[in-house]
Amino acid sequence: MTLASTPQTKPLTEAELQKINAYWRAANYLSVGQIYLLDNPLLREPLKQEHVKPRLLGHWGTTPGLNFIYVHLNRVIKKYDLNTIYIAGPGHGGPGLVANTYLEGTYSEYYPHISQDAEGMKKLFKQFSFPGGIPSHVAPETPGSIHEGGELGYALVHAYGAAYDNPDLIVAAVVGDGEAETGALATSWHSNKFLNPVNDGAVLPILHLNGYKIANPTVLARLSHRELESLFIGYGYKPYFVEGSDPTEVHQKMAATLDTIIGEIQGIQREARVHGFKERPQWPMIILRTPKGWTGPKEVDGKKTEDYWRSHQVPFGDVAGKPEHLKLLEDWMRSYKPEELFDANGKLIPELAELAPTGQRRMGDNPHANGGVLLRDLIMPDFQNYAVDVPTPGKAIAEATKVTGKFLRDVMKQNLESRNFRIFGPDETASNRIDPVLEVTDRTWAAQILPEDDHLSPNGRVMEILSETNCQGWLEGYLLTGRHGFFSCYEAFIHIIDSMFNQHAKWLKTTRHIPWRRPIASLNYLLTSHVWRQDHNGFSHQDPGFIDHVINKKAEIIRVYLPPDANTLLSVTDHCLRSRHYINVIVAGKQPALQYLDMDAAIKHCTKGLGIWEWASSDLDSEPDVVMACAGDIPTLETLAAVDILRQNFPDLKVRVVNVVNLMKLQPQSEHPHGLSSKDFDTIFTTDKPIIFAFHGYPWLIHRLTYRHTNHKNLHVRGYKEEGTTTTPFDMVVMNDLDRFHLVMDVIDRVPKLGYKAAYVKQKLQDKLIEHKQYITQYGEDMPEIRDWKWPY
Amino acid sequence: MTLASTPQTKPLTEAELQKINAYWRAANYLSVGQIYLLDNPLLREPLKQEHVKPRLLGHWGTTPGLNFIYVHLNRVIKKYDLNTIYIAGPGHGGPGLVANTYLEGTYSEYYPHISQDAEGMKKLFKQFSFPGGIPSHVAPETPGSIHEGGELGYALVHAYGAAYDNPDLIVAAVVGDGEAETGALATSWHSNKFLNPVNDGAVLPILHLNGYKIANPTVLARLSHRELESLFIGYGYKPYFVEGSDPTEVHQKMAATLDTIIGEIQGIQREARVHGFKERPQWPMIILRTPKGWTGPKEVDGKKTEDYWRSHQVPFGDVAGKPEHLKLLEDWMRSYKPEELFDANGKLIPELAELAPTGQRRMGDNPHANGGVLLRDLIMPDFQNYAVDVPTPGKAIAEATKVTGKFLRDVMKQNLESRNFRIFGPDETASNRIDPVLEVTDRTWAAQILPEDDHLSPNGRVMEILSETNCQGWLEGYLLTGRHGFFSCYEAFIHIIDSMFNQHAKWLKTTRHIPWRRPIASLNYLLTSHVWRQDHNGFSHQDPGFIDHVINKKAEIIRVYLPPDANTLLSVTDHCLRSRHYINVIVAGKQPALQYLDMDAAIKHCTKGLGIWEWASSDLDSEPDVVMACAGDIPTLETLAAVDILRQNFPDLKVRVVNVVNLMKLQPQSEHPHGLSSKDFDTIFTTDKPIIFAFHGYPWLIHRLTYRHTNHKNLHVRGYKEEGTTTTPFDMVVMNDLDRFHLVMDVIDRVPKLGYKAAYVKQKLQDKLIEHKQYITQYGEDMPEIRDWKWPY
Ligand SMILES: Cc1ncc(C[n+]2csc(CCOP(=O)(O)OP(=O)(O)O)c2C)c(N)n1
Ligand SMILES: Cc1ncc(C[n+]2csc(CCOP(=O)(O)OP(=O)(O)O)c2C)c(N)n1
Ligand SMILES: [Mg+2]
Ligand SMILES: [Mg+2]
Repeated sequence: MTLASTPQTKPLTEAELQKINAYWRAANYLSVGQIYLLDNPLLREPLKQEHVKPRLLGHWGTTPGLNFIYVHLNRVIKKYDLNTIYIAGPGHGGPGLVANTYLEGTYSEYYPHISQDAEGMKKLFKQFSFPGGIPSHVAPETPGSIHEGGELGYALVHAYGAAYDNPDLIVAAVVGDGEAETGALATSWHSNKFLNPVNDGAVLPILHLNGYKIANPTVLARLSHRELESLFIGYGYKPYFVEGSDPTEVHQKMAATLDTIIGEIQGIQREARVHGFKERPQWPMIILRTPKGWTGPKEVDGKKTEDYWRSHQVPFGDVAGKPEHLKLLEDWMRSYKPEELFDANGKLIPELAELAPTGQRRMGDNPHANGGVLLRDLIMPDFQNYAVDVPTPGKAIAEATKVTGKFLRDVMKQNLESRNFRIFGPDETASNRIDPVLEVTDRTWAAQILPEDDHLSPNGRVMEILSETNCQGWLEGYLLTGRHGFFSCYEAFIHIIDSMFNQHAKWLKTTRHIPWRRPIASLNYLLTSHVWRQDHNGFSHQDPGFIDHVINKKAEIIRVYLPPDANTLLSVTDHCLRSRHYINVIVAGKQPALQYLDMDAAIKHCTKGLGIWEWASSDLDSEPDVVMACAGDIPTLETLAAVDILRQNFPDLKVRVVNVVNLMKLQPQSEHPHGLSSKDFDTIFTTDKPIIFAFHGYPWLIHRLTYRHTNHKNLHVRGYKEEGTTTTPFDMVVMNDLDRFHLVMDVIDRVPKLGYKAAYVKQKLQDKLIEHKQYITQYGEDMPEIRDWKWPY
Repeated sequence: MTLASTPQTKPLTEAELQKINAYWRAANYLSVGQIYLLDNPLLREPLKQEHVKPRLLGHWGTTPGLNFIYVHLNRVIKKYDLNTIYIAGPGHGGPGLVANTYLEGTYSEYYPHISQDAEGMKKLFKQFSFPGGIPSHVAPETPGSIHEGGELGYALVHAYGAAYDNPDLIVAAVVGDGEAETGALATSWHSNKFLNPVNDGAVLPILHLNGYKIANPTVLARLSHRELESLFIGYGYKPYFVEGSDPTEVHQKMAATLDTIIGEIQGIQREARVHGFKERPQWPMIILRTPKGWTGPKEVDGKKTEDYWRSHQVPFGDVAGKPEHLKLLEDWMRSYKPEELFDANGKLIPELAELAPTGQRRMGDNPHANGGVLLRDLIMPDFQNYAVDVPTPGKAIAEATKVTGKFLRDVMKQNLESRNFRIFGPDETASNRIDPVLEVTDRTWAAQILPEDDHLSPNGRVMEILSETNCQGWLEGYLLTGRHGFFSCYEAFIHIIDSMFNQHAKWLKTTRHIPWRRPIASLNYLLTSHVWRQDHNGFSHQDPGFIDHVINKKAEIIRVYLPPDANTLLSVTDHCLRSRHYINVIVAGKQPALQYLDMDAAIKHCTKGLGIWEWASSDLDSEPDVVMACAGDIPTLETLAAVDILRQNFPDLKVRVVNVVNLMKLQPQSEHPHGLSSKDFDTIFTTDKPIIFAFHGYPWLIHRLTYRHTNHKNLHVRGYKEEGTTTTPFDMVVMNDLDRFHLVMDVIDRVPKLGYKAAYVKQKLQDKLIEHKQYITQYGEDMPEIRDWKWPY
């Protein structure tokens, strides 16, 4: 562990320095132009009111810093022929990234109407944050972006996700000092404990310490130098400070520091690649302390603006109302001397243009930032080989996730060489029983390893950290750069990444309609240790609401599966791993449980998405009296047990059992591409019979999906109604009225023809429930008739 | 900034040491007993199968460490007469906290049937993680708990929230080394920049570095000593290392360190309280490195267990199947020598019992951990004094959140002396326009302050950090200890705390039914900068789904308000601040907007929760042809503008306008205590007329709430359907078909009697929409007729 000292050399010749500074001026000029101007892009005439946008939207404060970093990265990319992408944590600095990709030429290649001339520049300015134009952030529309940076906090996890298994890549990750206060960002520094210099690329974090956020100083900016340095040393980095406000000086420092750092990165990699991984290196990072709104107006209306939070957004508005603001704007823009930067046609002069790298070395054109173009299919073993033997429904026992764990193991195995598949989880891979993967790979661990450690290795491909945000962010970065992944998590705690999920879903939705963006692999969740089997951890671990959250997002992106047993889980998992550009949510239990479908039946059932289970139904040659629907493993179990009770007590009752694997099937076709036609829905669920629906999650979700269907009026849903504690598994369903006895009582209440006999049955069931409570309170486990129940037919 | 050196003194006499160790053995014994035993609690006879629980549920690994800390805190509480509460980050160590509160006597006071004798101990053991018993975690049922610790990550934010404005309190916060990997925890260390030693209490963080989590080592445990120390120095602490596995040695170290630290804390406080706040102190903390599962079985079935992750849960199960496990259990439990610890009746012997503090100094009985008993009403100014003048509906303009900001300012002012009200926000207080509060208080800031800083002070009561998790956690801790608060946040990013919200809602639900827990103040959210007015930040900032998430939780806890203008927002805010034990979500815009109701009307409207707006309706003396319902400020605006168009084009059409402030009113009474009766619902919404409902959020939420009502079949909802970008405000509603023109077209499509004329109107509206698109694409702002529209009647 060593302290870094900022190199004191001045690697730039005077000419180089001037050029770099000029290039930076050009980027700053174009950034301000985007925020303010509608016309007169090159200021060839005096600036007038009508050249200025009526609504001024955008963020200036972070932009000069982002531009500064860009031009310096360009320099080292060229000098060392680096393969580099740029992640802008403060994604609100959109104008800067657009300006730079425009200067380097990629922008006009992707968007030919934004040409590199006066006309193009005018359009470039107008389109920014303008209706019909482009977003204000480093959005999917921005070439070179895999990170919008709208919701702050994920710059570094995305960067690491991109770097894993990309040995040649250097991911420069700019972290806002405000962003650094978020929880997700604060823990993501530890990602270096999961990076192997042999097979992974490098992440170069650049803390953009411009001192301020929207209306406050930042915490990190107000630490002493020594505290700040200690913090990053503690995080495992070697922090280089690049500080100042005089561009000439800071250019030299930045160039010298980057030269040193690139040397160090290459040294670390060479060492590890030649001699093998020895110990976690102390990776270099940069702390760039420069003024917020650098080179912008020092004061506006007498108030400090440069080097202050007032420059965060648009440093001054009301250009129409205050002529002095128009003047301020013109002076500011002219301070960059556009006439020295752009030629007569409005094109960047060649002496400056040549500073940028060329082709795919340009950060705007790096294929890693458009992962779909690099994506290769996984080599997939035949999932049918992992089938559980189910000679007859409802008798065999298996652990669904464990079975799928074996399938995942072989997916892992067959793609070990391609190094394009990883599994993620917050310390729960074993707990969630997909640990068979550890037979072929280890847990990723580049920190200290002790002899007693179990399957830890810097080469491991199972990424475990007790941070759902890290898992999610790494996976996103990994997928966005064209690889595959799988995330298993406790169902309740996946809510920790609700917001990250939102952002990824929005990214997928938008990129689907950007022609040059290619589809990426789906983000696959396996939610297990679910609400019905967290009886031992209690109420805090019981929450099935993630799917409610998920289906608010665009139907074209969202898929939700509730396979009832091991073979259906296999089939669904196979399907998800092959899919593209979706978010797939699979909910399945990990406990030993009854198996219903053999592999053939499972494939058919999953392909249809929902269907009548003939073997469990008694309405084959007649109209049903009641439809017993179910979705989820536990509700399926309870439904079948209820059907058993019904058969015994009401042998004449015609029961139809419908199981739902693909939740989206329940929606009308108009709402989701998977939706059943009304015709099909009516055929399966009838138009007038009572439906008792036993659902894994909150019951109203089923209403929300089905309210447009004809028979919705007869739909009665049981599900989780937020009752729970530490108790027995069966008691959990009892507490929520989802148990077999309640389901039968629901049928009795809704099927009039059951008549007088029903009263006795109902009473018997109520007695059973009392017996159940007494039994568990005494013995602490469920009654044998419950625990050992099997489908008896 | 100084380095700590672990004191080398041995403050405990041999006798003291033996006693402390014995007390710890007693706590460990009771913990193991809870996990394993049904009977034979004192091991007065040889252990048999039938004494052991059939299902073994619980977590041993963290427990000895938690117990160790507890007894040492007891020592210093007694020695220095400290006022201390204990927050167990690894809340899965429930047996430990239960054991300790039992030993100190509080447990039996709260739960008299769990008496301090053999009979009580037997019940204590049986009830743990047992049906009808108590949860496995440090749940609301546990005396002294404000922190269940089920979902990991919030120990430290809760601790700081408890410490703010409690100058005499020391909050000991045990942080699991796994927990420390979570994002929320990683950033919460910075809470020390917001703590003022003059008026706030102290937080004593104890990093419980037992090396492991569920099935992995922890990141922090595998840093070098120097990195670890650097990290915490960087976080602003003075870390004291207490390390070892020989209890005798570690007891002395812990005692010496705690003596030193208590001295330092008191020194810091004395200095600041006598001489005023000078600079942020370097608060002490402890890094306690002891084995996971300390004193438990070293090996189980030949596998390393103590000092390893295998001791995380139940170190060995299958006591029934493996006699050697029964033996292991008995040996383990006897190793604590229960016969030396408990007297003939099974009560802790007096020599040990006297080690615990007495009365409310006992951590299980500290009133701060049952905040409701300390809660005092806020002194409230009359909100009507802040009323916006609304002489006639739909003409005046005001900024709703700014108006409420003035009310909040005076709430703040009137309670400054009581120091029991704080406002929280992720750097958005000014952006969300509740900055009038800064006229009477500052932003909390105990870090470096520069001359140019604006309203920063260590005495400030507005807490801003760019971490939604910190804001939420601080507020929770503050409320749970009996104070009041208000959290304003961008609507989209509140999803970052979805999961924390869940846990708090569960806490409230459970505590409501624990008689000795007293109600606490409600958690109040103001969600602003909402989906319809994030047009400048674009798609990533547009998400109204938090309310969907919220209403999955228990109706008795959840309240959701969508006030349409400033006076209604005032009335709602007043109501929320006075309420108890709820989570109130208020959604309201911050932009200048039309005002509809004068204060009188606003109060009536908010009290009803929803109502017909007569002044906007045209069905006063007849049946309506259509009901135009709306909830949320922007939908209300668009609805009224649509009604205007309808009036102009179809003067005979009878329109009823219904505005909804209290969303829960829409549910049936059976589902929510606020729900309208079916009768009232039918009267207002009719039983057979089309309802066009313009909603702030995702449209299906309204269906979910109303599907049981008679007229649901005629309900047509418009809302956010996940379309958005950087554009104009009106274009946002157009993109989602929620604009006035679409709403009118919806009426045309659903009211048959409009007849042939309607075709022309529809075409005119379609033309308007095209005109709109053309206009904004050219000018970048909305058409004047849209921007300047007012209610013209
Ligand atoms: C999670 C989240 N919370 C709040 C915001 C609102 N917001 C936008 S920019 C900003 C300040 C960012 O400060 P910093 O990271 O320092 O960026 P810079 O100074 O470079 O602009 C905030 C709070 C956000 N975008 N994301
Ligand atoms: C947010 C969250 N993710 C996952 C879990 C599941 N879980 C329970 S305990 C645990 C390990 C905790 O390790 P640590 O904090 O070190 O506690 P200790 O070693 O003291 O038991 C995990 C991952 C959880 N409770 N919360
Ligand atoms: Mg900043
Ligand atoms: Mg641990």
